[in-house]
Amino acid sequence: MSAPTDSSPQLGSEYVAPRVPNQPPPATPEELAELEAMYKRMDETYMKPLWTQIGGLMPDTPEPRAVAHHWDWEELYKLAQRSGELVPVGRGGERRAIGLANPGLDGNTYISPTLWCAIQYLGPGENAPEHRHSQNAFRFVVEGEGVWTVVNGDPVPMRRGDFLLTPGWNFHGHHNIATEPMAWIDGLDIPFAHQMDTGFFEYGTEELTDESTPEKSRSEQLWAHPGLRPLSFPGAQTSSPIGRYAWEHTDAALNDQLALEDAGHAGVVSPGHAAIRYTNPTTGGDVMTTIRAEFHRLRPGASSTPVHEVGNRVFQVFEGSATIHVGDKTFEARHGDIVNVPSWQKWSIDAGSDGVDLFCFSDHPIFEALHLARTYTPKGI
Amino acid sequence: MSAPTDSSPQLGSEYVAPRVPNQPPPATPEELAELEAMYKRMDETYMKPLWTQIGGLMPDTPEPRAVAHHWDWEELYKLAQRSGELVPVGRGGERRAIGLANPGLDGNTYISPTLWCAIQYLGPGENAPEHRHSQNAFRFVVEGEGVWTVVNGDPVPMRRGDFLLTPGWNFHGHHNIATEPMAWIDGLDIPFAHQMDTGFFEYGTEELTDESTPEKSRSEQLWAHPGLRPLSFPGAQTSSPIGRYAWEHTDAALNDQLALEDAGHAGVVSPGHAAIRYTNPTTGGDVMTTIRAEFHRLRPGASSTPVHEVGNRVFQVFEGSATIHVGDKTFEARHGDIVNVPSWQKWSIDAGSDGVDLFCFSDHPIFEALHLARTYTPKGI
Amino acid sequence: MSAPTDSSPQLGSEYVAPRVPNQPPPATPEELAELEAMYKRMDETYMKPLWTQIGGLMPDTPEPRAVAHHWDWEELYKLAQRSGELVPVGRGGERRAIGLANPGLDGNTYISPTLWCAIQYLGPGENAPEHRHSQNAFRFVVEGEGVWTVVNGDPVPMRRGDFLLTPGWNFHGHHNIATEPMAWIDGLDIPFAHQMDTGFFEYGTEELTDESTPEKSRSEQLWAHPGLRPLSFPGAQTSSPIGRYAWEHTDAALNDQLALEDAGHAGVVSPGHAAIRYTNPTTGGDVMTTIRAEFHRLRPGASSTPVHEVGNRVFQVFEGSATIHVGDKTFEARHGDIVNVPSWQKWSIDAGSDGVDLFCFSDHPIFEALHLARTYTPKGI
Amino acid sequence: MSAPTDSSPQLGSEYVAPRVPNQPPPATPEELAELEAMYKRMDETYMKPLWTQIGGLMPDTPEPRAVAHHWDWEELYKLAQRSGELVPVGRGGERRAIGLANPGLDGNTYISPTLWCAIQYLGPGENAPEHRHSQNAFRFVVEGEGVWTVVNGDPVPMRRGDFLLTPGWNFHGHHNIATEPMAWIDGLDIPFAHQMDTGFFEYGTEELTDESTPEKSRSEQLWAHPGLRPLSFPGAQTSSPIGRYAWEHTDAALNDQLALEDAGHAGVVSPGHAAIRYTNPTTGGDVMTTIRAEFHRLRPGASSTPVHEVGNRVFQVFEGSATIHVGDKTFEARHGDIVNVPSWQKWSIDAGSDGVDLFCFSDHPIFEALHLARTYTPKGI
Repeated sequence: MSAPTDSSPQLGSEYVAPRVPNQPPPATPEELAELEAMYKRMDETYMKPLWTQIGGLMPDTPEPRAVAHHWDWEELYKLAQRSGELVPVGRGGERRAIGLANPGLDGNTYISPTLWCAIQYLGPGENAPEHRHSQNAFRFVVEGEGVWTVVNGDPVPMRRGDFLLTPGWNFHGHHNIATEPMAWIDGLDIPFAHQMDTGFFEYGTEELTDESTPEKSRSEQLWAHPGLRPLSFPGAQTSSPIGRYAWEHTDAALNDQLALEDAGHAGVVSPGHAAIRYTNPTTGGDVMTTIRAEFHRLRPGASSTPVHEVGNRVFQVFEGSATIHVGDKTFEARHGDIVNVPSWQKWSIDAGSDGVDLFCFSDHPIFEALHLARTYTPKGI
Repeated sequence: MSAPTDSSPQLGSEYVAPRVPNQPPPATPEELAELEAMYKRMDETYMKPLWTQIGGLMPDTPEPRAVAHHWDWEELYKLAQRSGELVPVGRGGERRAIGLANPGLDGNTYISPTLWCAIQYLGPGENAPEHRHSQNAFRFVVEGEGVWTVVNGDPVPMRRGDFLLTPGWNFHGHHNIATEPMAWIDGLDIPFAHQMDTGFFEYGTEELTDESTPEKSRSEQLWAHPGLRPLSFPGAQTSSPIGRYAWEHTDAALNDQLALEDAGHAGVVSPGHAAIRYTNPTTGGDVMTTIRAEFHRLRPGASSTPVHEVGNRVFQVFEGSATIHVGDKTFEARHGDIVNVPSWQKWSIDAGSDGVDLFCFSDHPIFEALHLARTYTPKGI
Repeated sequence: MSAPTDSSPQLGSEYVAPRVPNQPPPATPEELAELEAMYKRMDETYMKPLWTQIGGLMPDTPEPRAVAHHWDWEELYKLAQRSGELVPVGRGGERRAIGLANPGLDGNTYISPTLWCAIQYLGPGENAPEHRHSQNAFRFVVEGEGVWTVVNGDPVPMRRGDFLLTPGWNFHGHHNIATEPMAWIDGLDIPFAHQMDTGFFEYGTEELTDESTPEKSRSEQLWAHPGLRPLSFPGAQTSSPIGRYAWEHTDAALNDQLALEDAGHAGVVSPGHAAIRYTNPTTGGDVMTTIRAEFHRLRPGASSTPVHEVGNRVFQVFEGSATIHVGDKTFEARHGDIVNVPSWQKWSIDAGSDGVDLFCFSDHPIFEALHLARTYTPKGI
Repeated sequence: MSAPTDSSPQLGSEYVAPRVPNQPPPATPEELAELEAMYKRMDETYMKPLWTQIGGLMPDTPEPRAVAHHWDWEELYKLAQRSGELVPVGRGGERRAIGLANPGLDGNTYISPTLWCAIQYLGPGENAPEHRHSQNAFRFVVEGEGVWTVVNGDPVPMRRGDFLLTPGWNFHGHHNIATEPMAWIDGLDIPFAHQMDTGFFEYGTEELTDESTPEKSRSEQLWAHPGLRPLSFPGAQTSSPIGRYAWEHTDAALNDQLALEDAGHAGVVSPGHAAIRYTNPTTGGDVMTTIRAEFHRLRPGASSTPVHEVGNRVFQVFEGSATIHVGDKTFEARHGDIVNVPSWQKWSIDAGSDGVDLFCFSDHPIFEALHLARTYTPKGI
């Protein structure tokens, strides 16, 4: 009566085992009529038999309706730009954000059953007013600068390569002080909150609570020192208190891993593949309870190890180019392009001739918290 | 930048605050045409604007599509009985289980977005073959006896008032050795696994691995002694190792709480309302990572305290009768009847003239694990 | 740079490896004089060189000053009885308790560097007044009945075989309502608190706050139901809320383990050796943060597996008799006798011809919490 | 039956409450003779009465034997230098380390009942051979450079202001490649391991396993990036994987806190008092399970808040000067000087006219892990 094994090594062979098809009982016309009457009565009383649907409800391995898809950054950017011309930003609509809608998910703006991914666009001098919601949010800046996001009164600069947090129930707004427009991606757990009925929302001020534009946020001054924490804030926090993970640190950490590999020491995930996870420094765990974020760097010609995982990933190419394999699909991706990986579909990345830098986020913390995570690395590849 | 408050005392007033309606920008016919063209292009590229949908996607408080509903036990039982005459149980269909389908959830057999609840029916001498799945399962026996469920080779008797566990990835089957049919309810996290794409399934043997019919399961011999654990199984386990929570203990614990109340000591949840939670003795926490189970006893005329909660509850009346209030609905429920509570809808229970005993299960552990749980108890009642 | 292995399988061979003896530097008389002058100056300034003492300070494996010892229950009881005639119990002395003083520990009343073990004796009608202290305490009743211990106002009956808790900072007193005297053993972490300077103490009332004599304590009514917890006390508690672990449950749990062994199923620790750990039902862990308690039952002729462990154990024979091996000593023990095991000394128990029941407590939770625990089971025995 | 309050607000008034003195029973000469005979018999059988010793064993508040003391760095350094002339370093003596012996602790080389603090000295070209032990160790560099410590094969540079870790059971040695001698302080939990009998020790190689002298250790390349962790080392580790906390980061973190204070934002511990804790980035907790390390910076004229704490602290002045109050003692301390604070003695620091930088370590994690920690901040100061 031991607990289920989260990562079963035998799972690989198991999961291709053919399932015996449901055997409908042979029936006479009279029997069929009686069955039909029973099913009709069930419908009327809001009941449904398990035996007619078990294969779809409980497949041998996850059979996601979400499909792997590739979104082109140039196309996204052009539409964001166009919306900047046509649609004002302000209270009510709240954000000039355009969400990616997975082709398999019935027209919902879900990139996965759990995750929202959007391009947000702010013209010179524009403000996105303050609000807060229980949904967790982050931003990743694939290019540009000039916007500050104000999180609970702390102005956080947004620059190329930065990863920024707005954990649930923190007031936040954005303003662009530059002479150029700026676009970035937003990631949230909106679909999870929407399907699970957990979301709360509240308006804040129309004007930003602090319009200063410091080089570093206050959150970085307090928390972004390696292995050090302020004595004045003891204890574990639900979400990371770091508002901005500046690019210079991410870049240095990846370079250090590759230097260790060159010197023959441990550090990279696999040959030519460096990667870091953004963490909550008060726990060492994920930045938010529902969203994991990582950054991957592959040397020219390097490939990641193919793997199946419970849960959903989203990749955005930052620099360079890559061939991304998901299930039986293959995508060519370059600067800004976005590709998602549905649950349990095997994925791997082949770096292009200049190597590739990729930002990645996922919903894996949800499944790890509930002991539903499983991974499977096929052998002999 | 502190973590969001899970249980905000101000939330009560906040959540009725009217949300400013979305203000569509005034537009000329030419502008409208341009907007339309832009939205069409978005559709073609699998994108959607946030500003047209934010109110529905991110409401002020949860607006579940699931509705509160009442299922009548006599009706359920009659249909289960009828299916016993018409449909054999066996490999393929696996179980003669009839699931409750929430009227708000598009015809899916989901009692909530997360939970499955079914009546299962086994005739005299019938076997439900062995299988296992990553979905967590339990059974609650509202009446009857004579079936043993075999969990990883351990035969567990099923009797009136018993609560039985089959945590994820344990092989299990059932067989009825009595001369009477038997019915009980099954609870699982099938909808959560189905929507989140986490489910794995595997067949076991057609015949049960142990056909003996002991008075107590081996899991009870090892684990069902109060405050004692076997030295041979150290450490925390993901799910409870107790296969059967026998009715005699549940009944005694509730009686003891009411006796303490009579003697003027702490113990009950509120006046006249005793309640226990079934726990995993290796952690003190919930029996499984996705499902919480409780038993409530209200004295004649007693009422529970009305409350809003993130997450879903399902009640089944065991003995007596009750008036169950959910949102603006009111249900009269008696032996075997099932009523569900959707997320954030205020609920309370008024015991009938003989008092009431209720079994209850919920998906609350999911939201607590992710720090998305919130409760709100309206004041001045 | 990985963490140290808590339980190294290679440790067995390592720990007998001879340590190179310290090599005093060869020296001329002049050099010796200079050394002496330096050491003298060190003494004057409260400093000491590591190089002259490292072997004693940092041995290859623990070299406890505490020794294994056997205390005879008849002798203990006679002295307790005598003190009952000569010494009143009351405020100031607080308890008529006589502590066991390990012969290796310099005359301190420490049975180990961490643990206190005493026999406490209360004559008919006597009261031990209320007080509280941060030291954790328990009582085990090897024989007798008639005393109630009142813990934070909850009267807890003491009967043969019961294990009772008084976690730190709970007010408690005892009173004997019987016509016979009663004696039992007290276990506390007094030596740890004394050496580590953590102890706080406070007087309570002279009279007991509740002189009633119920069959069960209120703590048992709330908490001593297997796998069930009251909804009204959510969350983990530092110490177990169960005030009394009644003998009937301990006895049944051990019998069940032996019955499982007879039927060919897992359960016992090793052949013929059943054992339970008393636990905190809100965590599944130890009853208190510094003290672990267990009960062991060996069939006639059965032996426990010899093992070395970091930390200290104390055994008291409850019924039957045993030969207890500790390091190179062997003790014959029968009803009430107490034997201690110092850190890292190999121990094992051979049951006598009637088998043996033993109560056991230890300081192992201290070392597990700090990741300093290690065990070593010699092979080939 | 709730858990004891770790930090009781009422404790302040309680702990000065006078304890009722033990009342020796009035006795005739005959009774005294009988008592004496009984105590003699107790002695012979290794027993001792509680009633004659309870006040000393269980005081109202901790009454440590350790005393507050001040060690002068110039004096320490001179003796270390002298030992460099007279005593070779090498296998057997292992280290040229001179430990600070608390005047209250019976001549043991314990700065507290739990902690070891020593000055270690290595001449140009000298090697301290490799070994490992279960005792946790760190080094803090108050001045100098030129030594590399090699921890499990990773060469770690030691420079002014650096804090370096050698968690338990990691092989380590040191070598000085400079033309100058170098001295630093070592901190370990040797007294705790020695009194609690938990220590293991093993020799490694005489020669260092890697004699290279890189600018940064490999541990820093992998782990010393703020909020980022390598994907290749998942999970929590018992001790921090960071081998060196470089001075530049500590200094910057403290400056940032003072800059936040200047700008009117939260960050400092109290007015003019900035402080960081060194942490394990895989947990957010302490660097090792038994030792906490911090760095404090007080502006000129600033004072820390007086506080009583369970457990022991050791301060070393890094730059500037301070008046350190401990209990009823007052110490003037400047560069390199070391002052200890015994358990529950009130302490505070007044910065000198240039302000003060202090390194600090303590045994507080031991008492927090066991829920024995308490603090008390007197009011009205």
